[in-house]
Amino acid sequence: QGVVCIFGTGDFGKSLGLKMLQCGYSIVFGSRNPQVSSLLPRGAEVLSYSEAASKSDIIILATHREHYDFLPELVDCLKGKVLVDVSNNLKINQYPESNAEYLAQLVPGAHVVKAFNTISAWALQSGTLDASRQVFVCGNDSKAKHRVMDIARTLGLTPLDQGSLMAASEIENYPLQLFPMWRFPFYLSSVLCVFFFVYCAIREVIYPYVNGKTDATFRLAISIPNRVFPITALILLALVYLPGILAAILQLYRGTKYRRFPNWLDHWMLCRKQLGLVALGFAFLHVIYTLVIPIRYYVRWRLRNATITQALSNKDSPFITSYAWINDSYLALGILGFFLFLLLGVTSLPSVSNMVNWREFRFVQSKLGYLTLVLCTAHTLVYGGKRFLSPSILRWSLPSAYILALIIPCAVLVLKFILIMPCIDNTLTRIRQGWE
Amino acid sequence: QGVVCIFGTGDFGKSLGLKMLQCGYSIVFGSRNPQVSSLLPRGAEVLSYSEAASKSDIIILATHREHYDFLPELVDCLKGKVLVDVSNNLKINQYPESNAEYLAQLVPGAHVVKAFNTISAWALQSGTLDASRQVFVCGNDSKAKHRVMDIARTLGLTPLDQGSLMAASEIENYPLQLFPMWRFPFYLSSVLCVFFFVYCAIREVIYPYVNGKTDATFRLAISIPNRVFPITALILLALVYLPGILAAILQLYRGTKYRRFPNWLDHWMLCRKQLGLVALGFAFLHVIYTLVIPIRYYVRWRLRNATITQALSNKDSPFITSYAWINDSYLALGILGFFLFLLLGVTSLPSVSNMVNWREFRFVQSKLGYLTLVLCTAHTLVYGGKRFLSPSILRWSLPSAYILALIIPCAVLVLKFILIMPCIDNTLTRIRQGWE
Amino acid sequence: QGVVCIFGTGDFGKSLGLKMLQCGYSIVFGSRNPQVSSLLPRGAEVLSYSEAASKSDIIILATHREHYDFLPELVDCLKGKVLVDVSNNLKINQYPESNAEYLAQLVPGAHVVKAFNTISAWALQSGTLDASRQVFVCGNDSKAKHRVMDIARTLGLTPLDQGSLMAASEIENYPLQLFPMWRFPFYLSSVLCVFFFVYCAIREVIYPYVNGKTDATFRLAISIPNRVFPITALILLALVYLPGILAAILQLYRGTKYRRFPNWLDHWMLCRKQLGLVALGFAFLHVIYTLVIPIRYYVRWRLRNATITQALSNKDSPFITSYAWINDSYLALGILGFFLFLLLGVTSLPSVSNMVNWREFRFVQSKLGYLTLVLCTAHTLVYGGKRFLSPSILRWSLPSAYILALIIPCAVLVLKFILIMPCIDNTLTRIRQGWE
Ligand SMILES: Cc1cc2nc3c(=O)[nH]c(=O)nc-3n(C[C@H](O)[C@H](O)[C@H](O)COP(=O)(O)OP(=O)(O)OC[C@H]3O[C@@H](n4cnc5c(N)ncnc54)[C@H](O)[C@@H]3O)c2cc1C
Ligand SMILES: Cc1cc2nc3c(=O)[nH]c(=O)nc-3n(C[C@H](O)[C@H](O)[C@H](O)COP(=O)(O)OP(=O)(O)OC[C@H]3O[C@@H](n4cnc5c(N)ncnc54)[C@H](O)[C@@H]3O)c2cc1C
Ligand SMILES: Cc1cc2nc3c(=O)[nH]c(=O)nc-3n(C[C@H](O)[C@H](O)[C@H](O)COP(=O)(O)OP(=O)(O)OC[C@H]3O[C@@H](n4cnc5c(N)ncnc54)[C@H](O)[C@@H]3O)c2cc1C
Ligand SMILES: NC(=O)c1ccc[n+]([C@@H]2O[C@H](COP(=O)([O-])OP(=O)(O)OC[C@H]3O[C@@H](n4cnc5c(N)ncnc54)[C@H](OP(=O)(O)O)[C@@H]3O)[C@@H](O)[C@H]2O)c1
Ligand SMILES: NC(=O)c1ccc[n+]([C@@H]2O[C@H](COP(=O)([O-])OP(=O)(O)OC[C@H]3O[C@@H](n4cnc5c(N)ncnc54)[C@H](OP(=O)(O)O)[C@@H]3O)[C@@H](O)[C@H]2O)c1
Ligand SMILES: NC(=O)c1ccc[n+]([C@@H]2O[C@H](COP(=O)([O-])OP(=O)(O)OC[C@H]3O[C@@H](n4cnc5c(N)ncnc54)[C@H](OP(=O)(O)O)[C@@H]3O)[C@@H](O)[C@H]2O)c1
Ligand SMILES: CCCCCCCCCCCCCCCC(=O)OC[C@H](COP(=O)(O)O)OC(=O)CCCCCCCCCCCCCCC
Ligand SMILES: CCCCCCCCCCCCCCCC(=O)OC[C@H](COP(=O)(O)O)OC(=O)CCCCCCCCCCCCCCC
Ligand SMILES: CCCCCCCCCCCCCCCC(=O)OC[C@H](COP(=O)(O)O)OC(=O)CCCCCCCCCCCCCCC
Ligand code: HEM
Ligand code: HEM
Ligand code: HEM
Repeated sequence: QGVVCIFGTGDFGKSLGLKMLQCGYSIVFGSRNPQVSSLLPRGAEVLSYSEAASKSDIIILATHREHYDFLPELVDCLKGKVLVDVSNNLKINQYPESNAEYLAQLVPGAHVVKAFNTISAWALQSGTLDASRQVFVCGNDSKAKHRVMDIARTLGLTPLDQGSLMAASEIENYPLQLFPMWRFPFYLSSVLCVFFFVYCAIREVIYPYVNGKTDATFRLAISIPNRVFPITALILLALVYLPGILAAILQLYRGTKYRRFPNWLDHWMLCRKQLGLVALGFAFLHVIYTLVIPIRYYVRWRLRNATITQALSNKDSPFITSYAWINDSYLALGILGFFLFLLLGVTSLPSVSNMVNWREFRFVQSKLGYLTLVLCTAHTLVYGGKRFLSPSILRWSLPSAYILALIIPCAVLVLKFILIMPCIDNTLTRIRQGWE
Repeated sequence: QGVVCIFGTGDFGKSLGLKMLQCGYSIVFGSRNPQVSSLLPRGAEVLSYSEAASKSDIIILATHREHYDFLPELVDCLKGKVLVDVSNNLKINQYPESNAEYLAQLVPGAHVVKAFNTISAWALQSGTLDASRQVFVCGNDSKAKHRVMDIARTLGLTPLDQGSLMAASEIENYPLQLFPMWRFPFYLSSVLCVFFFVYCAIREVIYPYVNGKTDATFRLAISIPNRVFPITALILLALVYLPGILAAILQLYRGTKYRRFPNWLDHWMLCRKQLGLVALGFAFLHVIYTLVIPIRYYVRWRLRNATITQALSNKDSPFITSYAWINDSYLALGILGFFLFLLLGVTSLPSVSNMVNWREFRFVQSKLGYLTLVLCTAHTLVYGGKRFLSPSILRWSLPSAYILALIIPCAVLVLKFILIMPCIDNTLTRIRQGWE
Repeated sequence: QGVVCIFGTGDFGKSLGLKMLQCGYSIVFGSRNPQVSSLLPRGAEVLSYSEAASKSDIIILATHREHYDFLPELVDCLKGKVLVDVSNNLKINQYPESNAEYLAQLVPGAHVVKAFNTISAWALQSGTLDASRQVFVCGNDSKAKHRVMDIARTLGLTPLDQGSLMAASEIENYPLQLFPMWRFPFYLSSVLCVFFFVYCAIREVIYPYVNGKTDATFRLAISIPNRVFPITALILLALVYLPGILAAILQLYRGTKYRRFPNWLDHWMLCRKQLGLVALGFAFLHVIYTLVIPIRYYVRWRLRNATITQALSNKDSPFITSYAWINDSYLALGILGFFLFLLLGVTSLPSVSNMVNWREFRFVQSKLGYLTLVLCTAHTLVYGGKRFLSPSILRWSLPSAYILALIIPCAVLVLKFILIMPCIDNTLTRIRQGWE
């Protein structure tokens, strides 16, 4: 499949060379000290930079940007050749221009292509390419780019054309990112968790301690998390569907869809998927915490004591059908809500969402999503049940946490209900179809 | 990357133009009123149709089919150019011929290519291409098709060659579909659910009401769904494996595999995956409903009362090992069955099934699938246990629901057992290998 | 799209021919008896081998290797043509050389390409290409290879270039494999399960029988599996992270990373993913077995009896906060551990891992993975709690099973703790960055 030259016999150069040899390429390394370079893959030649460059018309530059200074001398022998920049930086936007653009300035005659920087040397070596096999490629010369993409494909990687060399700085930042879209959902949910944890601890640990000197600290392990997690899940779920409503109101107000949303709304709308998945995580925790209830020592002890008390007092406890109804319905609502929640999660898996068309995806995410929200809100409302308005739930005039939790979901549902009334819905549809 | 012309400055035209500009293309719009057209992406030119067409040899037609009537005038300047039809209809098979074929008749000299109709304008705009990135492409001219596929690839989409323009009508119907393969499983399971719901309601709510005036309506929320769901799951699971058996019998009877199955069998076999996943959904609901049992008010109340009654009557309740055995085994069987069920579900995920070879896929789906069916059937059988034959389970001469539920699964297992007996299996294998 | 010739009108030839016809190719079959061959897809011609070969310059050879003997006669008319070998064998490495290489020897003038052998005839026929759509392609002639890859792409398959014809034997072995990487984890976990099952059976069934003639056999169904499964899960989880530590120690000892690990370590490191997923399966079983506890007859009976005994003896059972703390914390630790475990599982899904970059993947798999191990170990330690050192847990001087289970996880955590101490960590980092 032709000869490829690699400059630099470091970690990445070696690994890539080995992989390419296995895939049938001939490899020539260019090195500062061709003699010293040892431990190279068998079958590869090591020459000086200029000699190596003359052997191939595609050169992969596997050295750090800091050491590009030897290149200007080679401008002549690199003229017209494809020069692949694989370098990464240590920090996001470390230099004013991207490494690839810097390289293009250094070696004006060469066709610089950015590629392979997202692939880890160690992964190439060990063969476990479990994380992304995507190779983002960009460059100004279309032919050079396609040659590099062919190489990537031959190595079993997935090249993705990202356009001109201007895209290089984004490509260089990519491997340094750590879940950028998950950051906002993560912080938001942390804040919510901490707030409700403290809130519940005040109501359920400090209050009884102050009022009755009872030690309820053990509630911190399960009882309180099992309030905090579902509340966070519910609020996050509502916050997934709130931006869509705000967007609709804005569009109605402006009368057009051709003006950009404010930045915060845009960003919010783009991280709804992540918000929803974090909510799913919390809902999952809530479910397991709930299912574990009957094997807790505290619950068993309470149950046993209640039974004994009743047996000893010989009092009859009649079966109250309305209690059974309320209890069973809120459980059933929760279960169905959780099931739909999981369905939303499954359809977020990239491979599943890639198999459905837009109509189907929106049906699941938007229609079933709202149904999920309705079910989960109803679950909480019915759980609250009669307790809701009884004054005894106020402790230090703090209402139960779930009452706070219901504010946003209920608001979202009411607004949505208004928006889908025919008169408003028609206007909105007209606006969205672009008929101004 | 060259100039591309887009006819129509509507929603889709604008969105696509913007995206293409971002990916390095130059865009020329063709419009009825080049002056009026506003709000266009920066960097794009707007000209009259004929002027725009002359600037590029690839033209994307972003107007509705109803407005194709301006095209015949342009036949000359479109001669030999690539004309991309992106249009969708409002209903499946709305017109006798597909839009793309209609276009090819209107502009005979152009190379018509159908593409991009599955991509939503709004998704292009907002950048959240979460649903399918697949672009189905078809056309009679192979070179034109490849150019369009290259564009799709550059935009980060996945082009799929669908052959000649005859495929256009299928491609145009695709975005209008709403889970076609899931429809039959959905209706079937709805019918099963409703039937068993009514059946159980008669036995467990109406019967006690008529016979003893007891109000058992609260059973409608959890107790009865927790009969209906597992029964539906079990029957659906059996129906996944029934068509394979029918096919085998048919092949044995005909002595050849080279005759098509009847249509209903073919369709049934093609939606086994969906049937199985729906069954998994119901099984999942059953599991959660079951795990929730001990926190139900009704169950706790009954338990407490039973304990108190026993305590007060001072009767000893000895531990019966056989009960413990039966109870523990049916739970264990259910758990193992559910686990394998989930495994079948995981291997149905497109990305996982794409990583396994045929032998592995069939090992999981066929071998482990039957094992799942065996375990789930055994779970139900052991659950039935002794109750099975006691006459007291008849109410108004209706047997317990699970007895009805067992008919199909047991039949499937017996038939399969017969089919895998060596003599029959050998004949079948011979037929399937094509040695007639 | 041109004419393609298929030699052999067997199962695979027919199915492939039909599929290609549907995708717009013209097909000519070559057969021993062109007259007899019936049941062929409509639109296809059947000729003698030499006639058929003359009609196309790409020939797909759909006969078994055993019948390649007719080919030497055709050497002339196959000269310069692309000859595609699709054959499979019945056993791994059945012949000294691969079928494709053998074919290349038989027909020296043709460009032999290996392809399509991973696709099942039946899947092609029935249209349910649910398992892999990957077509591995190899061949010495790059142009021939690309033509075959184009055909595969047109059929909706995913061609993967595997290099020169030397790769053919690997490609031929692929469809015969049955989860090769899962074998070691499977055997290992089986051994662990059996060992701990017997161990627990001795302690909990045989011991009470011998000592007190109590029949505890029913424990074999749930109680003992619910010891065996979590223990296996925990040990397997620890064994996922042990090889990384051994590798680090080896690198420290050798002072370089450029020497290969011993084979056993290499293999172990490559099947960590599978080990981890099997561990997840066992953990999942543990969780369901645990959640099912309160609906077991045995547990309910014991609870009721304990309550009655207490009620009758009129003894007070005070609430012990430390018990509640211990109980709630080990449950909470288990739940959080399981949640992270699932997260590791979700990120192993090929489509998800393909969306994250290396930094993110390693963050989840390595950092969160160790956190999972810490949580699960802590769960078991706290569960053991005080019981740990009490001599009464020895039966026939066998300690509780979970004590054995803790040995490897604790060792792994201690070693890891040593390795991340700054001085050692720095040395290691230096070694791994290749600065020797
Ligand atoms: C568990 C879980 C998983 C999730 N996974 C995903 C995921 O994978 N991907 C994802 O994107 N979201 C995901 N979400 C988030 C959420 O479900 C979706 O974003 C959902 O589509 C939002 O529905 P909506 O009806 O509020 O908003 P949308 O349908 O997006 O509508 C919101 C606003 O967009 C505008 N709009 C919509 N259509 C048009 C149009 N044709 N033209 C112009 N403007 C338009 C309108 O202003 C509208 O008000 C997930 C949520 C959860 C809970
Ligand atoms: C949770 C769950 C998920 C599922 N996911 C999937 C999925 O993703 N994809 C999927 O396809 N199914 C799926 N299924 C359905 C089911 O598991 C499979 O279809 C399974 O392969 C059926 O096995 P079988 O042995 O009955 O049928 P098959 O193996 O398909 O055999 C059925 C009949 O096909 C014919 N046949 C089989 N092999 C050949 C051959 N070589 N030549 C000629 N004829 C042949 C025979 O007539 C045979 O009787 C799922 C099921 C469940 C419960
Ligand atoms: C549920 C579950 C799912 C899992 N799924 C996967 C999966 O999908 N894919 C997968 O790979 N694993 C998977 N695993 C296994 C495990 O999580 C990972 O292998 C994890 O990366 C191991 O982390 P580590 O820190 O021990 O090892 P690593 O990070 O791999 O490090 C191990 C050793 O490799 C060497 N090393 C690491 N980095 C370098 C480097 N840059 N240069 C030279 N040497 C280096 C060092 O010697 C190091 O000690 C899974 C585990 C579980 C429990
Ligand atoms: N390692 C990875 O996982 C990875 C992944 C993606 C991208 N990359 C990129 O690949 C490039 C190489 O990374 P690496 O990990 O291989 O680095 P490395 O191990 O430090 O190797 C760098 C090589 O550059 C050469 N070099 C040329 N001039 C040099 C100088 N003045 N000082 C030192 N070395 C000089 C040396 O080769 P000679 O001795 O032969 O001259 C040296 O081996 C970097 O740009 C990096 O961002 C690395
Ligand atoms: N919107 C989507 O999500 C989507 C997705 C896939 C495919 N499509 C397809 O793309 C095409 C365009 O859809 P669209 O949503 O962009 O529609 P649109 O917003 O209604 O735009 C249609 C455009 O067609 C032009 N046009 C030409 N002759 C016309 C006439 N007689 N009357 C009205 N307009 C005429 C107009 O542009 P000028 O004013 O510049 O002449 C107009 O802006 C349709 O075929 C549609 O099926 C749309
Ligand atoms: N079946 C699959 O699922 C599958 C999957 C992947 C690969 N393959 C490979 O495809 C090839 C064909 O498999 P198949 O299942 O189609 O086999 P098959 O049904 O047995 O067909 C073999 C064909 O080879 C021809 N043939 C030529 N010389 C022959 C001879 N001396 N004796 C018998 N037949 C002779 C016959 O066609 P004529 O009567 O027309 O001469 C016969 O129909 C094999 O190499 C197989 O490994 C099969
Ligand atoms: C019983 C249910 C258990 C559910 C546990 C769910 C927890 C989910 C928490 C979120 C997981 C996020 C993974 C993050 C990885 C990542 O960063 O992944 C990063 C990628 C890409 O992210 P960007 O779009 O931000 O680049 O994200 C994804 O692809 C998200 C895929 C999410 C998949 C969620 C799947 C949930 C599945 C539930 C499935 C199953 C059902 C079954 C149940 C029995
Ligand atoms: C704890 C277990 C929870 C399981 C909950 C499972 C419910 C499953 C119900 C079916 C889901 C169907 C999704 C439909 C989307 C769709 O239409 O998807 C459409 C696509 C394409 O469909 P077509 O083939 O019909 O075109 O279908 C798929 O790709 C199906 C993928 C199904 C994935 C099912 C995954 C189940 C996963 C279980 C996972 C996890 C295990 C984990 C557990 C802890
Ligand atoms: C409630 C949680 C239930 C979890 C049940 C999990 C059991 C997992 C057991 C392992 C499954 C292995 C599949 C093997 C198929 C195979 O061979 O697959 C083979 C492929 C390729 O294997 P090779 O790399 O060896 O070639 O493997 C994979 O791609 C592995 C994908 C594994 C996916 C595991 C997903 C676990 C998902 C958990 C999801 C969900 C969360 C949700 C929960 C609520
Ligand atoms: C299987 C599904 C579910 C079950 C069995 C279930 C069960 C319960 C139970 C038993 C409670 C009362 C807890 C207590 O007494 O402390 C509860 C409360 C609650 N649940 Fe659920 N639930 C489920 C799903 C959900 C989902 C998906 C959500 C939404 C995100 C949710 C949100 C809530 C909220 C907000 C509360 C009130 C918390 C509080 O203040 O105590 N639940 N749930
Ligand atoms: C974790 C796994 C499972 C557990 C713990 C479990 C548990 C139970 C329990 C406790 C019952 C009795 C319910 C009652 O008394 O009303 C039951 C019944 C039943 N289960 Fe399961 N089960 C599991 C999985 C499954 C699966 C996978 C199936 C098959 C699809 C299944 C099918 C059934 C059926 C058909 C019944 C009889 C329903 C009736 O008529 O009451 N179960 N199961
Ligand atoms: C939802 C999560 C979990 C819950 C509710 C849970 C609960 C429990 C319970 C109740 C026990 C005591 C069992 C008995 O008394 O026989 C236990 C034991 C144990 N668990 Fe978990 N667990 C969870 C997750 C995990 C995970 C992820 C692991 C690790 C892989 C694990 C490992 C163990 C081990 C090793 C034991 C000791 C087994 C024995 O010898 O009895 N658990 N767990």
